[in-house]
Amino acid sequence: MRITVLAGGVGGARFVRGVRELDAEVSVVVNTGDDLWLTGLRVCPDLDSIMYALAGVSDTERGWGRAGETERISAELAEWGLGWPWFTLGDLDLATHIARTSLLREGLRLTEVTERLSARWPLGVRLLPATDDEVETHVVTADGQDLHFEEWWVRTRAAAAARRFVQRGVERAHATPEALAAIADADVVLLAPSNPVVSIGTILGLPGIRSALRDTEAPVVGVSPIIGGAVVRGMADACLATIGVGTDAAAVARHYGARRDGGLLDGWLVDDADAASVAGLRGSGFAADATGLWMTDAAESARIARAALALVSR
Amino acid sequence: MRITVLAGGVGGARFVRGVRELDAEVSVVVNTGDDLWLTGLRVCPDLDSIMYALAGVSDTERGWGRAGETERISAELAEWGLGWPWFTLGDLDLATHIARTSLLREGLRLTEVTERLSARWPLGVRLLPATDDEVETHVVTADGQDLHFEEWWVRTRAAAAARRFVQRGVERAHATPEALAAIADADVVLLAPSNPVVSIGTILGLPGIRSALRDTEAPVVGVSPIIGGAVVRGMADACLATIGVGTDAAAVARHYGARRDGGLLDGWLVDDADAASVAGLRGSGFAADATGLWMTDAAESARIARAALALVSR
Repeated sequence: MRITVLAGGVGGARFVRGVRELDAEVSVVVNTGDDLWLTGLRVCPDLDSIMYALAGVSDTERGWGRAGETERISAELAEWGLGWPWFTLGDLDLATHIARTSLLREGLRLTEVTERLSARWPLGVRLLPATDDEVETHVVTADGQDLHFEEWWVRTRAAAAARRFVQRGVERAHATPEALAAIADADVVLLAPSNPVVSIGTILGLPGIRSALRDTEAPVVGVSPIIGGAVVRGMADACLATIGVGTDAAAVARHYGARRDGGLLDGWLVDDADAASVAGLRGSGFAADATGLWMTDAAESARIARAALALVSR
Repeated sequence: MRITVLAGGVGGARFVRGVRELDAEVSVVVNTGDDLWLTGLRVCPDLDSIMYALAGVSDTERGWGRAGETERISAELAEWGLGWPWFTLGDLDLATHIARTSLLREGLRLTEVTERLSARWPLGVRLLPATDDEVETHVVTADGQDLHFEEWWVRTRAAAAARRFVQRGVERAHATPEALAAIADADVVLLAPSNPVVSIGTILGLPGIRSALRDTEAPVVGVSPIIGGAVVRGMADACLATIGVGTDAAAVARHYGARRDGGLLDGWLVDDADAASVAGLRGSGFAADATGLWMTDAAESARIARAALALVSR
């Protein structure tokens, strides 16, 4: 069986750790909207979060970056007033960015670079950046600032209300042939419980992705990132509010929409805490069910992935 | 008084540590022929050797790089098969290269980048790359290989005989206005006891430098890098042999030549071990003298610099 997952960073990583436990060939189309140039290096937060998590080298205590990390280089750069003091890159993590940037400068596509970097470990899945083009998510705040998503998210901790999100450069961008093929050739497509706006939404905003999801014969099942009316992690509620969607599992499902109506979903999985909403989604044009969605370990994530598959194999 | 020094890396650093003890405004025109791109980062070995030494952060035991160095990033890069395993960059050193590359990518000239990096410490001298252009020294070996100088020097330890040295890109390059002005405006120009071929010789090979040295009103004094018929450090003898010059203090002086004959020198300082050669240089058109040239500490280097100045102030 071929499973293709659309995913953002940390939540996507936790979910994919489970999906790879299944007896399937797994491709993960990863959000690249958070990517940025920092002191001349190309940083891809979501690709790295997933790669590190699957490789077993991520810092599970801190929730991001590499385990056993040091920050000697960032301290040096700060002495020169370089870098962003609120976006400290660890030394091991910087090695990834140096390697990536070096290979990009040699002319490789981000897809090829990601394959090369991933080959170091037996990740068990294929990581596919959604696009090889530089499409960075910017946030226009209510008070008129234009910030890179990471600056808004990490430095201001989404304090300034976002008026809208902009995918800078999207008009010249394309989804990669590999990502489109992974969607076209899948037996099932899963939407990870990632941020519906700036992770999944950013992937969906890339030319080619929505029509690939419309055209694929694979059913598409989403897993809710909202549990009991609250985000599991991050500040997805601030993003949802910006696009006028409530922090509510059913509201996110309606935002994605049913495939038969030009939307995305053939199935939608919510947490037991939101089981009541399943009845309310009846007649929406997609199957819905409830199960425990707390991804406490890989086994639980695998159970959730199986429940998502069960929703469309009935 | 304004003193301008032409210098290579480690020997240059030791000499300049002494020159800055003098009551003078010191500019150092630094060899950039060893510079290289390594995993997408611009590495400038001579500029960094001098900067670290003057900043007091160099590894004096090992003789190169930063003190307290670690090599976590190089180990990571090696996992991906990147970098040169025989040219290991330390983490603190890599921070310099990241900072430099980032500023170069922003469009700053190497001269401006060097000023920005140097400003972190009170170096006490102005470091001036001889050129802002990328002119890398290559070695064509007797067996027909074409190697970057650092590869020949560090990896093969100059094992393969060099047939000739090539300054790649020199035909499109220029000495910087700052370096030329430092020579034109100097009260004295000193040639550090650096490699006469691939350090001083490389600076001299840049369009503009020789005529600036010919035209300046400042006397030019060289300090011999050869003591008692042997190189003080490095493998300068292999380089000298390539251009047909003996490993001999007087031979190097004749190679530089007297200014009155279209060469460089108004003065030449040799070690006491080579005092006999001073008489032999009489009538060569430049002043010559002998003193102890072992640069054991900054005070000794300062004494040597003073002896060089005395040679042309008589």
